[in-house]
Amino acid sequence: MSNKTEPRTLAGFMELMPNEQILFEQIKEKIEKIYQRFGFLPLDTPILELSEVLLAKAGGETEKQIYRFEKGDTDISMRFDLTVPLAKYVAKNYGNLSFPFRRYQIGKVYRGERAQKGRFREFYQCDIDIIGDGELSVVNDAELPSVIYNVFKELGFDDFTICINNRKILNGLFESLNQKENSTEILRIIDKIEKIGKEAVIEELEKINVSRHSIDKIINFIEIDGTTDEKLQKLEDLNIESEIFKLGIEELTQVIKNVRCFGIPEENFKVDLTIARGLDYYTGTVYETFLNQYRELGSVCSGGRYESLAEFYTDKKLPGVGISIGLTRLFYKLNELNLVRADKKSIAEVLIVPMVDDLSVPIKIANDLRNKGINTEIFLNDKKLKAKMKYADKLEIPYVIVIGEDEINKGIVKVKDMITGNEKECLIDDIKF
Amino acid sequence: MSNKTEPRTLAGFMELMPNEQILFEQIKEKIEKIYQRFGFLPLDTPILELSEVLLAKAGGETEKQIYRFEKGDTDISMRFDLTVPLAKYVAKNYGNLSFPFRRYQIGKVYRGERAQKGRFREFYQCDIDIIGDGELSVVNDAELPSVIYNVFKELGFDDFTICINNRKILNGLFESLNQKENSTEILRIIDKIEKIGKEAVIEELEKINVSRHSIDKIINFIEIDGTTDEKLQKLEDLNIESEIFKLGIEELTQVIKNVRCFGIPEENFKVDLTIARGLDYYTGTVYETFLNQYRELGSVCSGGRYESLAEFYTDKKLPGVGISIGLTRLFYKLNELNLVRADKKSIAEVLIVPMVDDLSVPIKIANDLRNKGINTEIFLNDKKLKAKMKYADKLEIPYVIVIGEDEINKGIVKVKDMITGNEKECLIDDIKF
Repeated sequence: MSNKTEPRTLAGFMELMPNEQILFEQIKEKIEKIYQRFGFLPLDTPILELSEVLLAKAGGETEKQIYRFEKGDTDISMRFDLTVPLAKYVAKNYGNLSFPFRRYQIGKVYRGERAQKGRFREFYQCDIDIIGDGELSVVNDAELPSVIYNVFKELGFDDFTICINNRKILNGLFESLNQKENSTEILRIIDKIEKIGKEAVIEELEKINVSRHSIDKIINFIEIDGTTDEKLQKLEDLNIESEIFKLGIEELTQVIKNVRCFGIPEENFKVDLTIARGLDYYTGTVYETFLNQYRELGSVCSGGRYESLAEFYTDKKLPGVGISIGLTRLFYKLNELNLVRADKKSIAEVLIVPMVDDLSVPIKIANDLRNKGINTEIFLNDKKLKAKMKYADKLEIPYVIVIGEDEINKGIVKVKDMITGNEKECLIDDIKF
Repeated sequence: MSNKTEPRTLAGFMELMPNEQILFEQIKEKIEKIYQRFGFLPLDTPILELSEVLLAKAGGETEKQIYRFEKGDTDISMRFDLTVPLAKYVAKNYGNLSFPFRRYQIGKVYRGERAQKGRFREFYQCDIDIIGDGELSVVNDAELPSVIYNVFKELGFDDFTICINNRKILNGLFESLNQKENSTEILRIIDKIEKIGKEAVIEELEKINVSRHSIDKIINFIEIDGTTDEKLQKLEDLNIESEIFKLGIEELTQVIKNVRCFGIPEENFKVDLTIARGLDYYTGTVYETFLNQYRELGSVCSGGRYESLAEFYTDKKLPGVGISIGLTRLFYKLNELNLVRADKKSIAEVLIVPMVDDLSVPIKIANDLRNKGINTEIFLNDKKLKAKMKYADKLEIPYVIVIGEDEINKGIVKVKDMITGNEKECLIDDIKF
């Protein structure tokens, strides 16, 4: 290699081969199409922000992972999610936006995490949020599961479950047990029940000095089971004396009622009282979504309701509800498990293969097909026929039209189906697939 | 504002309001659609690269503008164009790619330029390149003008000119005048003739000690005019004794012949012997594109042929030809001049406005429309009818369906056309626009 630089890509940064990229783009487009189907508006904020603005709220783990640097006198950071830039945007443009402000954003975010397989430092998030001005009806919390449902159906999945809970129910429970100051810690622990099991959860709760009585109440609570309506009834039956608990049940009941109005089948959603979403951020409804045959992927779409989007930038009360899909990791996993279905394996639908020196007829055919809206590639380089066919094959282009003197003289071409191997004759002016 | 952080965006970073963002996305999609129409493959490379890799070739002005920083022990830079990442990608994946490798990439790049109006530090480039393995027929150089032509037609322009030249003609001329070592400097000067005029060009040439005789020859050359075919003839008639000059004429003649095969009208392209593209990089065909009524925008799509894409990473000879559209600046200018036409001004085609407490019927209607593929928003918050109509109006949603008790009882809704104000009655199960 003498004085050449070795061409390499940073660890933790996904870079796909063309056939995988085609797949990735299709998934991204399907998500975007569904977001638009629900009338969400596009947004594209810068990847770089002033550190002072981006990190107004951050701290702890997140802050350590941030790509932060100085350019001239400016302290700059790369965005680590799409929520903080949204908060900035809404606070900055408050007077010019219409509320509820419903936006989607699909873009790359950056976190300098420890490199490991399946973890990425640059990854796409696909977010939607609905932001209210002062207030936002809880019915909005029922629309987002409908978006999630339509996204995963569109991606070809049937067996998935959107788990819905309400943080007020949990918070109210802890309040009634006088465990309010422990609530973040307790939430963190019970959030892990799926992973570590009931006994380990009890142990961890004992470690932070929750009384036996309270632990029993907590375990009784998270073990509530049955149908969705039975769960809601059993929650009522607990007779917990807490206004916030009651409000939580009321909201959750409203959300479930409207989730049904949105036509989500019973098998695709459930009330799951154990999900809390780690973040302090959420204050009401929370969501997680699981592909049931691939629980090991973790939640593939999560989110929830928050009291105030932009409190670090403005005094305005801006409640919101949102969801996020971590597309890069999701794609990596689905691709690894061979679970992604490509609608089209190639960009070009047809490859024109000229076997003549004068390219005017082959080029005219390519033109005509393109003008009809057909993605068409024409092989413009001097190669043997075999090499040209191999090229079509490797790119998985479904149709090939070889054009020689004979075809030009007769005004007829053969359209070859590369999958079946069948050939069909067409008039040059009337090529069909 | 007490302890709030002022929400602001970095200078030189575009951040659009929703209605502008919708426009921007439409333009981006149209460009992408045309790139795909020609069978180009998508590529998405990281925004961050190892500085050692990204800057293997850079130097001078470019290097000063780069966003570069350390994270842990890693020296990282943000990409400043899409060509270097392409070179890295092709060199890295050489064995797994099919050649010619035809890729498009639409993505953000970063240059810390001096901030000024209409200049951006984060901007989209929309690139296509065709990379050959060892060789690449000059016919490819004729296909790219066809892409440019289709892009600007798709964007709604008719009066634009794709200027085509060949660097070999210029280089051969300088060789014949014994000005080879001055050629980069001379190219730089004559490239400015449009801006500074002939006299200033002569003065600048004198300053670098080009002889009066040579200046005459150069001026005669760049003043060649007439139709495309007349220009090609006059070039021949100059009888310049240089193999490279002759090869340049031959290539340019080939390109023009095939540009005509690709069906580009005579009024949309021309041979322009003065364009050289500043960069040393190009070695054959070069392109610039002008909107004729807005020459002040400068070239809106440029590119050309290069001898070797990835010589800093590999010994493999990888000739290529490519073009690039600087979308962010183009959008900014077109938007400022009010030249962008929106096909659709809103994402939602219809707003459902419920005026009832029980939302089940309005939600069902929204569901049905969405299932039919119609982008539908439903107003889920408690507002007065007037406020809801104002919302539809501000978002420029073309149709509104108000649903009250009356409509539900009769099973009939009124679809209001927000532009004409006309209302049309439809059965709930059979809503049409």
